Amino acid sequence: MNKSAILLFAGLCTSVLASPAPKNIIMVVGDGMGPEYTTAYRMYRDDKSTAELEWTIFDHLLVGMASTHPDISNGYVTDSAAGATALSTGVKTYNGAIGVDINKQPVQTVLEFAKLQGRKTGVAVTSQINHATPAGFSAHNVSRQNYDAIANSYFDEKINGQFKLDVMLGGGWKYFIRQDRNLVEEFKQSGYTYVDDMSQLTQLTNKQPLLGLFADVGLPWALDLPNTPRLPALVKAAVKQLENDKGFFLLVEGSQIDWGGHSNDIAAAMGEMHDLGLTLEWLSQYVDNHPDTLFVVTADHSTGGMTIGARGEYNWDPEPLKHLKSSPDMLGKQLVDVSNRVDLASEQLGFALTKEEQQQLTVIDSHDPKVFTKAIKTILDKRSITGWTTGGHTGIDVQIFAKGPGSELFSGHRDNTDIAKTVFKLLGKK
Amino acid sequence: MNKSAILLFAGLCTSVLASPAPKNIIMVVGDGMGPEYTTAYRMYRDDKSTAELEWTIFDHLLVGMASTHPDISNGYVTDSAAGATALSTGVKTYNGAIGVDINKQPVQTVLEFAKLQGRKTGVAVTSQINHATPAGFSAHNVSRQNYDAIANSYFDEKINGQFKLDVMLGGGWKYFIRQDRNLVEEFKQSGYTYVDDMSQLTQLTNKQPLLGLFADVGLPWALDLPNTPRLPALVKAAVKQLENDKGFFLLVEGSQIDWGGHSNDIAAAMGEMHDLGLTLEWLSQYVDNHPDTLFVVTADHSTGGMTIGARGEYNWDPEPLKHLKSSPDMLGKQLVDVSNRVDLASEQLGFALTKEEQQQLTVIDSHDPKVFTKAIKTILDKRSITGWTTGGHTGIDVQIFAKGPGSELFSGHRDNTDIAKTVFKLLGKK
Repeated sequence: MNKSAILLFAGLCTSVLASPAPKNIIMVVGDGMGPEYTTAYRMYRDDKSTAELEWTIFDHLLVGMASTHPDISNGYVTDSAAGATALSTGVKTYNGAIGVDINKQPVQTVLEFAKLQGRKTGVAVTSQINHATPAGFSAHNVSRQNYDAIANSYFDEKINGQFKLDVMLGGGWKYFIRQDRNLVEEFKQSGYTYVDDMSQLTQLTNKQPLLGLFADVGLPWALDLPNTPRLPALVKAAVKQLENDKGFFLLVEGSQIDWGGHSNDIAAAMGEMHDLGLTLEWLSQYVDNHPDTLFVVTADHSTGGMTIGARGEYNWDPEPLKHLKSSPDMLGKQLVDVSNRVDLASEQLGFALTKEEQQQLTVIDSHDPKVFTKAIKTILDKRSITGWTTGGHTGIDVQIFAKGPGSELFSGHRDNTDIAKTVFKLLGKK
Repeated sequence: MNKSAILLFAGLCTSVLASPAPKNIIMVVGDGMGPEYTTAYRMYRDDKSTAELEWTIFDHLLVGMASTHPDISNGYVTDSAAGATALSTGVKTYNGAIGVDINKQPVQTVLEFAKLQGRKTGVAVTSQINHATPAGFSAHNVSRQNYDAIANSYFDEKINGQFKLDVMLGGGWKYFIRQDRNLVEEFKQSGYTYVDDMSQLTQLTNKQPLLGLFADVGLPWALDLPNTPRLPALVKAAVKQLENDKGFFLLVEGSQIDWGGHSNDIAAAMGEMHDLGLTLEWLSQYVDNHPDTLFVVTADHSTGGMTIGARGEYNWDPEPLKHLKSSPDMLGKQLVDVSNRVDLASEQLGFALTKEEQQQLTVIDSHDPKVFTKAIKTILDKRSITGWTTGGHTGIDVQIFAKGPGSELFSGHRDNTDIAKTVFKLLGKK
């Protein structure tokens, strides 16, 4: 072939190879999941019986990276509200903003556009369902702190006369069952099935709209529900309820990776990573069986300034993080007022404490569980060689993972707003 | 078309679209350059006169990410020697190993294979040319610390009777001009042109093999050579000398990003990032003009546990890092024994010191320049909101950047050894 023929053929190839638009789109946010978390998770899941470091589901799905800064009049480090708004609307805004722009004006989200096009919509998260990320896709408010108003808007705001969300799964009794308003009752009276125990999720027999709230605020740590992969259960139920001829849009969030980062709790963070990892494994299989479905995974930012290795040591050791019977938060509560702290801590941590570690627990003269939790986290940081620089967020770029039709559109370097813009296009917005 | 016809056509397309093998391959290592450094560099280069955060050359070139661990019998955090050996040979080894496997046996490097195939070869780095990364591509030694032996091997080891390296540019007088052996003289007597001043690099008129050493050990910090982009100068000269009909392989290293990380010096690290950024901009244009050339950029690991944002603050501010007239190391030396520390520091940093910052300098009762350097770094960390967790390395995945024929082969998640394996294939190894 001569050069122009090759170019022509290459052009034809590009057209032919371009995927058709997906019928269903699932966006997944690992809140606070910078690239240090996905790397650490690979080590945490390493099969020590082999000489290899095995790939995780994240590795199989990696396609690109994204910058996360808010509107730069707000600086370079985003919060989850501005991050969610960027990912849902394609618009940069100020920290704290829920689905509104820098001038506090509402901006359409991909979830709202999907609903407008006749798709079913849902959120499945491990935080309260009116927390920054799900709210950033489903509501418009000048502040993420207006939890009650955001919860109200889930009932009050309609699209073409319909509720915005067909499925809502996560925590939030505190905000949905209040003295001044019982939104759960209102949803039930409007035809929603309501469940408040995760075991009910596998027993749903109809395709009615669904509200499931399983905690006052966020769900318990994954580490404290050892035999109950909780986000996979929420996502499986959400997808089952949402499947329909016109397609669906689902927002999934591994909300508490961020909470592990904020509290500098590497054990809790790895537990949350595994809950999300299992979710992605299930979603990947789902896409294999439903090739009309795209899922895109990213993070809104990273949290905690966590580092794999610290204090001059050239190693990281996830081993002490693998056998916890309860989270450091829960263990802190258990250790208050017990007679033998050392035995209980050893049993719950899954390893024998050194003399130095024993002393770190026995010298504590406090009835505050947080003091015990902090001592446990210090022991785990030292053993695992984990570093932290902040209780807040950091500005490092995050990864983009994708599978299904259109996944190639998220490769290379992107801004978080580009992710929303691409999803809008795939949903058919001109 | 029916399904099987589409699959057939897609298969044909893939074959047709695959690039021809590149004639020239340039591998670039940003030593210690984790994704937090490339993200911070974008903010450091932000044009504040616009509302956008502009893309850097790294953003335009991003294709994937790589894991960096050494042979996991050595843990999960690599040093530069094992990192270089993985990138040069495709083999995991122990920390400290230079071109040898876990059993201390020599393994062929991509540079050696390129030479064996008749290509010219070179290294252009800002460390000494026998430092871990260039040595990992050009030598075989059980320990990176054997600097003299590694330098000797550059002269003594031959491939098909020829010297291994046609071009060597960087630092290293200390190791090449010694009491027991003067390797510079030996190279000169064997037909090498020798230069020891960077201004000579633009005046070379022949294509003789070239040795250029410009410092005792590593080159001065980029910040202390403000009007002399040093790595771009080395790389331009190297490429000019290496160009020939049979192609070339060049190893480039921005060596001192890592050194900025080790000393927790964010200003020096950003200066080094810019020196590498300018190099990549030139290489990108070179590939535009020489479409038979591939360049692949990655890091061996990250260093310092640097974070963009720290201590609870949701921001990062590169502004105080942009106007330094000398590096914190140089400024530390300048501040010893001067009468007015505050005026000199303000002048060299490019901003007026606060009363608190003034006091941090005036209270110092020491004649050790390092104490002053440390105070300056503390001021810059606080102003820029930079965090650090270690003086060593961390295990976070690093990025892969590429342009030119074959660049698509480096996309998605990879291990660092996969990069070497792909380069071997592109060089024609079966």
